[in-house]
Amino acid sequence: MTEAAPRRRSRGGGGAARRAERTSTKIETAKFIERNIPNFEVLTTEALEIIEANAEAILEEVGVNFVDNPAALDRWREAGADVQGERVRIPRGLARKLCETAPSSFTQHARNPEKSVEIGGKNLVLAPIYGPPFVRDAQGGRRYATLEDFQKFVKLGYMSKWLHHSGGTVCEPTDVPVNKRHYDMLLAHMELSDKPFMGSVTEPSRAQDSVEMCEILFGKEFVQDNTVMTSLININSPMTFDDVMMGALEVYAKNNQACIISPFIVGGAMAPVSVAGTLTQVLAEVMAGIAYSQLIRPGAPVIFGAFVSSIDMNSGAPTFGTPEASMVTYGAGQLARRLGVPFRSAGSFCGSKLPDAQAAYETANSLNMGLMAGVNFMLHSCGWLEGGLVADFEKFVMDADQLGVLHGLAKGISVDENAQAMDAIREVGPGGHYLGCAHTQANFKSAFWKSDLLDYKPFETWEEEGARDTRQLASSRVETLLAAYQQPALDPAIREALYAYVANKKESVPDSFL
Amino acid sequence: MTEAAPRRRSRGGGGAARRAERTSTKIETAKFIERNIPNFEVLTTEALEIIEANAEAILEEVGVNFVDNPAALDRWREAGADVQGERVRIPRGLARKLCETAPSSFTQHARNPEKSVEIGGKNLVLAPIYGPPFVRDAQGGRRYATLEDFQKFVKLGYMSKWLHHSGGTVCEPTDVPVNKRHYDMLLAHMELSDKPFMGSVTEPSRAQDSVEMCEILFGKEFVQDNTVMTSLININSPMTFDDVMMGALEVYAKNNQACIISPFIVGGAMAPVSVAGTLTQVLAEVMAGIAYSQLIRPGAPVIFGAFVSSIDMNSGAPTFGTPEASMVTYGAGQLARRLGVPFRSAGSFCGSKLPDAQAAYETANSLNMGLMAGVNFMLHSCGWLEGGLVADFEKFVMDADQLGVLHGLAKGISVDENAQAMDAIREVGPGGHYLGCAHTQANFKSAFWKSDLLDYKPFETWEEEGARDTRQLASSRVETLLAAYQQPALDPAIREALYAYVANKKESVPDSFL
Repeated sequence: MTEAAPRRRSRGGGGAARRAERTSTKIETAKFIERNIPNFEVLTTEALEIIEANAEAILEEVGVNFVDNPAALDRWREAGADVQGERVRIPRGLARKLCETAPSSFTQHARNPEKSVEIGGKNLVLAPIYGPPFVRDAQGGRRYATLEDFQKFVKLGYMSKWLHHSGGTVCEPTDVPVNKRHYDMLLAHMELSDKPFMGSVTEPSRAQDSVEMCEILFGKEFVQDNTVMTSLININSPMTFDDVMMGALEVYAKNNQACIISPFIVGGAMAPVSVAGTLTQVLAEVMAGIAYSQLIRPGAPVIFGAFVSSIDMNSGAPTFGTPEASMVTYGAGQLARRLGVPFRSAGSFCGSKLPDAQAAYETANSLNMGLMAGVNFMLHSCGWLEGGLVADFEKFVMDADQLGVLHGLAKGISVDENAQAMDAIREVGPGGHYLGCAHTQANFKSAFWKSDLLDYKPFETWEEEGARDTRQLASSRVETLLAAYQQPALDPAIREALYAYVANKKESVPDSFL
Repeated sequence: MTEAAPRRRSRGGGGAARRAERTSTKIETAKFIERNIPNFEVLTTEALEIIEANAEAILEEVGVNFVDNPAALDRWREAGADVQGERVRIPRGLARKLCETAPSSFTQHARNPEKSVEIGGKNLVLAPIYGPPFVRDAQGGRRYATLEDFQKFVKLGYMSKWLHHSGGTVCEPTDVPVNKRHYDMLLAHMELSDKPFMGSVTEPSRAQDSVEMCEILFGKEFVQDNTVMTSLININSPMTFDDVMMGALEVYAKNNQACIISPFIVGGAMAPVSVAGTLTQVLAEVMAGIAYSQLIRPGAPVIFGAFVSSIDMNSGAPTFGTPEASMVTYGAGQLARRLGVPFRSAGSFCGSKLPDAQAAYETANSLNMGLMAGVNFMLHSCGWLEGGLVADFEKFVMDADQLGVLHGLAKGISVDENAQAMDAIREVGPGGHYLGCAHTQANFKSAFWKSDLLDYKPFETWEEEGARDTRQLASSRVETLLAAYQQPALDPAIREALYAYVANKKESVPDSFL
């Protein structure tokens, strides 16, 4: 089934990619962010060492559980851990030692090689929301997500200049059987976008299907030698690694595909109420997870993940954009850099039910913090609403626009001769005006980040045009983008092979909605 | 007229303050922020030195204008500047040298000594919006501001836990004659709040009136020896110091009262389109202004101000929450610290016409940046709408709530034994739950910042309660706060003396609305 796919290795996503480039309408996508600013480091070296020592103590004394996974227990036993039942106690230093083979940075290839991303170092790659069962828009309100919604989000992601990555389960296509959704989601990412994407993790077999579909898209040999998916492996905090997630991890690591090893923590519930305690647990969990990935295949690409929210102690609801979540993220970034692996955290997090001011405050707090914390891969960077239960169409384009701010901030401050602008200051002088001066004329087009969405009109014009708020402006931008969408070209033989693979697979098992 | 005021010096705001403490309802106000986190520094030492050298070159070669102010020109001439007409060229090093007598930090006293603030160092003092001619609320829409609006904002500021300062012209009471407004504004700050406040700068005589009213409130001797007002002196960028603002500065500096020396810059119009060029001009302007304040009275307290917005090159509108404005602020903070004076910048800036998502994104970008940039005094920290034309009641309480996030972030990360939470991690173990554990029970009350406004309710509850957005929640919070407001006690003799002073002054001149 892979015969249509090119066998030749190339720097990018193979022949399909090259053909796509020649034939499709050019959609502007910014290069992933390469920070020219420092990371914000809140923890002193002494504090970091305390947390690291504590994490080692937890791994050795308390240990972690690998559930329903005898092979994993065998691997750990062989590696030198103390295994009792499903509890794996890891001697001090062993987990960190095993993490050493994980790469500090890796390339995730897109089928369009111009859109391949480098994850690690000073870079920041932005991917959309992941996982919500509901969608919302101004017209239709809140409702269960469908495959049509999913495809719309993939199209919006493809059209978004500041989004480098197509993501994974942008929303759950609940109208498709649970055991067949992953085929349609992958098809959408592969066909409707040419940005990099994520694979399925809900069953090991679905991870295997994801690899096989990539072999069709990129070529089998290309996939063996290169990373073409980054997938999300959540840890069941505290300190539990279930067989489904670990099964998916095993498939991906074996195939040299990247995994985000990510505790999912609501502070005070799945981790201690203190920042330092949460960081200790996060570090212990991630080290155990990354170490395990390296037992599967040394050198398999991984990302240090930290999904952290605080909690409203009245309602038990997770809360976002809060100072405590920010502090955990800053600290986790430092710990990830000391471990020498890429870091995933932050996103367009909010608890609000609507894309209103609360949503925007919380989201902006989290996005800014993510940039400053040195995040390398930001999942959920646009579209998140209601604690992640809802993917919101308007908020998707609102957040995606704000991601442009992060690109601007990351540039830092140039002090080259043109930026010094001494001639301009001399030319204009006291009481003058810069709008007309030569330096302004030469530089204004690139001088300022420009929103594609927000309102800067005079009050009177704005009022005459209907006094629209951000959500209304966003509704019309969603419509405009979807109307202008054009599918990026894809080799028809590859498309056919993908559809044939999916049809064949779908036929082979009955539908299941469990 | 000051006979009712205490003559005795005290650590705080004198007798009125002590009496107020005994009799009034206690309103909780957080202490000003003392950062336990580093500042975010984007410019290298080399870059800073380039900008500093360029600023000196501009002062020497181009100079600044002191308009309609012969006495200022004389002072500059005496200090060693080259004065031609109104142009003052300042030899390299002179301005910086003169700035040396300015204090790196100073106390601004409140009449309630518990609410006095220390401006400088690692501290951040938060004050509300300043200057808008319009107000807006959900019920009444956008309209000219009145004294009643002004008084409501002062009450809301007094009730806001995270606001340390009552501000100045929270909105323009346009129903009061221009030449008499300052009396009513000061009366409101003095009587309706017990937090520190700002004086009038719209005429030198009004600055003098402000000093005299403070002499009544605090005692004449106390005011001579202590700073009880921080006032806003804007520079007419580029590089022009007008006689009205300088006249007010002269009155305040002479009386040892603090001034924010602040360029007001829309990038690309009043300064070069580049960040480094803007920083050069800002530094030159502020050094000239602070140097001048020290010519009036060496040691007079001042603040390095930088009000910076970018510009929408299509409409010419100022834009807020943008990466370029943030970069200027980060850089200006570094320059201020190297100059050894407190720093003022950032605020609840936005261009939006409504307290919607745009307003919140832009505001959160600016507030976060202000905290990270090492801002010591943040004017406009809540209530700002529509580029500063409008003070919005709902946004005032929305922003004021978000200021709590800054307090939380500034705490940094504790790694003391309790924060390490090792016992909790050991107690709970893999697969357990932290909600019930001893560490959580002992710490949950203070573990997380808690919003007084935002919605964390389950979707169903939220929907049953009317599916309210942030603005609606804020409307009801404004009502609740104003209904619960109780005036802080003030010595009746002082109040009487203040009212007598104002009545006398108001009678002495005819109304003017110019």
